[in-house]
Amino acid sequence: MKLSVLGCYSATPRAFTNPTAQVLEMKGHLFLIDCGEGTQIQLRKQKLKFARIKHIFISHLHGDHFFGLPGLISTFQLLGREAELHIYGPKGIKEAMLLLLKLGSAYTAFPLYFHELTSVKSEIVFEDEKLSVSTIPLKHRIYTNGFLFKEKLGERTLNIDAVKKYGIDTCYFQNIKNGKDAPTSKGEIIANSLLTLEPPRPKSYAFCSDTAFNEAIADAIKGIQVLYHEATFLEKHKSLAAKTGHSTALQAANIAKLAGAETLILGHYSTRYDNLELFREEAKQVFDNVELADDGKSFNF
Amino acid sequence: MKLSVLGCYSATPRAFTNPTAQVLEMKGHLFLIDCGEGTQIQLRKQKLKFARIKHIFISHLHGDHFFGLPGLISTFQLLGREAELHIYGPKGIKEAMLLLLKLGSAYTAFPLYFHELTSVKSEIVFEDEKLSVSTIPLKHRIYTNGFLFKEKLGERTLNIDAVKKYGIDTCYFQNIKNGKDAPTSKGEIIANSLLTLEPPRPKSYAFCSDTAFNEAIADAIKGIQVLYHEATFLEKHKSLAAKTGHSTALQAANIAKLAGAETLILGHYSTRYDNLELFREEAKQVFDNVELADDGKSFNF
Repeated sequence: MKLSVLGCYSATPRAFTNPTAQVLEMKGHLFLIDCGEGTQIQLRKQKLKFARIKHIFISHLHGDHFFGLPGLISTFQLLGREAELHIYGPKGIKEAMLLLLKLGSAYTAFPLYFHELTSVKSEIVFEDEKLSVSTIPLKHRIYTNGFLFKEKLGERTLNIDAVKKYGIDTCYFQNIKNGKDAPTSKGEIIANSLLTLEPPRPKSYAFCSDTAFNEAIADAIKGIQVLYHEATFLEKHKSLAAKTGHSTALQAANIAKLAGAETLILGHYSTRYDNLELFREEAKQVFDNVELADDGKSFNF
Repeated sequence: MKLSVLGCYSATPRAFTNPTAQVLEMKGHLFLIDCGEGTQIQLRKQKLKFARIKHIFISHLHGDHFFGLPGLISTFQLLGREAELHIYGPKGIKEAMLLLLKLGSAYTAFPLYFHELTSVKSEIVFEDEKLSVSTIPLKHRIYTNGFLFKEKLGERTLNIDAVKKYGIDTCYFQNIKNGKDAPTSKGEIIANSLLTLEPPRPKSYAFCSDTAFNEAIADAIKGIQVLYHEATFLEKHKSLAAKTGHSTALQAANIAKLAGAETLILGHYSTRYDNLELFREEAKQVFDNVELADDGKSFNF
């Protein structure tokens, strides 16, 4: 699982800071999460392959989270894309994108699907054999969802040491992988659990931006491995956070603690702060494993 | 008159090239012409004052010429703008911008006026005491206008040497500036033309992008001082230029020659070419004074 942060600053893009966008690599997928203005440039700078992006998740329809989307869709078209593109976002996103394309007579030759979201309860929006993506209802000034990416529990794998020890013939290996027991050369049946290893622990990532402090998030992501939670402000601007539907670094850390997260990544900083380390220090008061997002930074988990 | 090129490459923004946007300073105005994705970042990099932009001219509704507009309008709002903003562009631009703002519940507190263009003939779209801006109908795949910015002929100015020579009393200076003749101390009447200087030659700038080769442009801008004409391709890709409604460097130079322009600035290059000097060389075959636009470059005239 790899997270590439394309942009992690709030509000308006500036000369050296970008609005929200990130790419999550999970089980062969390249998921794009939010798409602020300039996202396609950030994708190029980080040498992420446009063609591998097949699913785009938009949290909400404030400009700093989706104004890069029309340009990205147009660029997909210019690049001769043929693969399907799925866009998940609040109701209205389809009308807006299709209107912008129509104005330029720039229809897409590739299949473009919009999955418009309206539910205020968590729902699965994408699922395949290996993972699922579900919404995390957030509290912001307008309808907003976070997204929870969860690998599914894999299959048990062949325990090479065990099959050797029991002298199991290789012809039974596929059966064992499929969950069956297997006989030794002497006809003794060995239980599958003795011949296989536990599947690796499924990885999980929760993206929560933009949101006011909301304990319900912690319930929705209990036991999460990696939590990206917005921290637009520091505690000294707590009232401003409440007023604008944003969180402080301390509040983000409290959600991580309540959820039992392994790692907390902070982002969506207001550009009023020069020193991002203050965010880490504040969060560390209640949660130890804090990382700071930054444009161009990537994390491997 | 100063032209600041924010972006001058065609199609999709890349890591180090920007789509079309430029700022023209003329008679105290800061006119923004086109607004591709990332324009607000380029404005910041070039330290151009957002608040001084009161008129935005959009040539056509292909993404690389206006996908930076919703973000810029939102940023004006975030910056607490109070001044009027006027946007001139093809019909449809108002619906699109207002829809994007509405989706984010991001209404503007400043007066925002759209002047939607539909005419296929040249028309004056903005005028004040000192200058006028009119459209230049262009031939492209969709409805497109160039823009002609023309200073008006100023008033004749007092010729200090002449009034001294004739011994004209200072109390007549305002009258002379207002076009009147004036008496010497001996009562002899001196003609105004002998006491004043010609006004400076009005400056003019024509923005022509995107467009196929079209001689009618030259007629519309006869005697232009500075012509920015797109040159998406070189002559070796002439058929591609014709097919896509674009021009070659040689064609741009022919328009400059036909119009009797003083200076030709080339831009809107396809990113397929590594060496921009080839554009200059090609244009110089028929027109001598050729400049190459580049992102971040500015020109004083």
